[in-house]
Amino acid sequence: MKKEEVIFGVDIGGTNTAIGLIDSNNKFLAEKSFETKSADGIDNYIERLTHHLNQMHHEYYFTYVLKGIGLAAPNADHRTGYIENSVNLNWKKVSPVKLLKKYFDVPITLINDANAAALGEQAGGSAKGMKNFVVLTLGTGLGSGIVVDGNLISGETGLAGELGHVVVKQDGRKCNCGRNGCLETYISANGIRRTVFELISYDNEETELRNISFNNLTSLYIAELAHTGDPVAKKVFDHSGEILGRALADIAACFDPEAIILAGGVAESGDLLLKPTRQYFEKYVLSIYKDKVKILKSSLQNSRAAVLGAGSFVLNDIEN
Amino acid sequence: MKKEEVIFGVDIGGTNTAIGLIDSNNKFLAEKSFETKSADGIDNYIERLTHHLNQMHHEYYFTYVLKGIGLAAPNADHRTGYIENSVNLNWKKVSPVKLLKKYFDVPITLINDANAAALGEQAGGSAKGMKNFVVLTLGTGLGSGIVVDGNLISGETGLAGELGHVVVKQDGRKCNCGRNGCLETYISANGIRRTVFELISYDNEETELRNISFNNLTSLYIAELAHTGDPVAKKVFDHSGEILGRALADIAACFDPEAIILAGGVAESGDLLLKPTRQYFEKYVLSIYKDKVKILKSSLQNSRAAVLGAGSFVLNDIEN
Repeated sequence: MKKEEVIFGVDIGGTNTAIGLIDSNNKFLAEKSFETKSADGIDNYIERLTHHLNQMHHEYYFTYVLKGIGLAAPNADHRTGYIENSVNLNWKKVSPVKLLKKYFDVPITLINDANAAALGEQAGGSAKGMKNFVVLTLGTGLGSGIVVDGNLISGETGLAGELGHVVVKQDGRKCNCGRNGCLETYISANGIRRTVFELISYDNEETELRNISFNNLTSLYIAELAHTGDPVAKKVFDHSGEILGRALADIAACFDPEAIILAGGVAESGDLLLKPTRQYFEKYVLSIYKDKVKILKSSLQNSRAAVLGAGSFVLNDIEN
Repeated sequence: MKKEEVIFGVDIGGTNTAIGLIDSNNKFLAEKSFETKSADGIDNYIERLTHHLNQMHHEYYFTYVLKGIGLAAPNADHRTGYIENSVNLNWKKVSPVKLLKKYFDVPITLINDANAAALGEQAGGSAKGMKNFVVLTLGTGLGSGIVVDGNLISGETGLAGELGHVVVKQDGRKCNCGRNGCLETYISANGIRRTVFELISYDNEETELRNISFNNLTSLYIAELAHTGDPVAKKVFDHSGEILGRALADIAACFDPEAIILAGGVAESGDLLLKPTRQYFEKYVLSIYKDKVKILKSSLQNSRAAVLGAGSFVLNDIEN
């Protein structure tokens, strides 16, 4: 009997690394997660990753044959295989592809994590069957992956789709990129926290949010408070929905997408953010796009989108 | 001897229609222009267009064989062949493709004029050999054509690339689209005139621009005054360059283009607009795009870009 073919998808995050063993129907046969600990160095990391991959592979060795390994990481360049200057990974410039090839004799690819998330949504998430869509990953920062005519766009130097850094407010909030007013300073886990503190500084309504420090605040907690009726927590999502809705209106004018998909931790707040975002989007968008663009939440759990997309990237690479 | 193959490119503008007879090396063998007079009706227009095309074709009949006709027009949908609700053409919904097919037994296509301009720049203008670039046509309004990985992007409903309607100023100038603050209310022939009047309303420096009415003002005249040192005329281009430079920084973050090309009447002001635009672009763009994106003036005269691009679209259509 011919063994079925499988691939590994690996999402290398600042805190954790997620691995999935995926079959040809985009089904997860197994998955696990371990701490990235990038401060221990890239060689140490590759050894631990290899250990985990081998462990998972051995369990399935007799039924499945490994066809490839797809890696995803922040600040990754799919053309060179390098991760460079990532804020959340303590490696200056490394090629996990090259290092992992010492241990595995299969095709290995690397792709930017937000692009991987877009491919994952296309393979088995909210963008299944779509040819034109945009994925925003709302984590610590805001990443994006853009698919046009069925293909991920990468631009002239591989850096297309930095939608976290379109400027939504001139001379607005200071961004880590050194500029001001970038979308991710408003719409991201950190941006949402900044909005809480801005509202508290301005408003005087009663709120539980005055009892928590910036560093202890999470978007999940803000969402929980909003559900209990906390007025400031509710305003945070309405304000954020207006900023995001306006920004998505401009994004629609660029790409004319079938859908814009929100993924990552902040998107877990669901309708709290989606409802005002849709409402302001329809209010501000150019009439030719009205009622045409779906604004959806990712249907994939946790980092599954990036894992699945990393896998689907290596598969495409093998097939082409 | 085998006759050489040629195509017609036709740019249907609100005021004039431009025709070019183009050989396989993108060389114009002949060109002419006539008044569109859309108010006389589409049937009358098609008859006059046919007359002009036949006249030009007869001169070249013995040496060349006509392979196709490519039309370009505002508000044109290349998938249906229809022009719909164009502000500058007095036709509600018409299919010049269908009507022209009664007279010519060759493939005929229709494409949006800003998209045609992008294809024209690629075929024989400032984007020759480029695979990732954006063309902005700065005429009465602001049109755009975007090429990604060598292909024009059209989006899910054929309406991608309405960059004239990204919002650069919340609650800014009223736009014909019914909204406020769109890029084209600042950067277009009309937008530049509005900037003149805004500066005159605010400033009290001596300027020749106080001697002319809004309707008699042209961007060419403002450029001429700037060259003579008129302080307000100079400020108009600096202000416009700042708004455009900031907008192009966001466009770079979307598409990571090799170049952004400015075409149309306003671009004829050359370095007056290009210099501050480049300067503010480099000042405001995300660092990863710094010194990478060329901001160029179209190297094609008048409406040649759209004529050439309309022709290259019908050629692509024949070949695929």
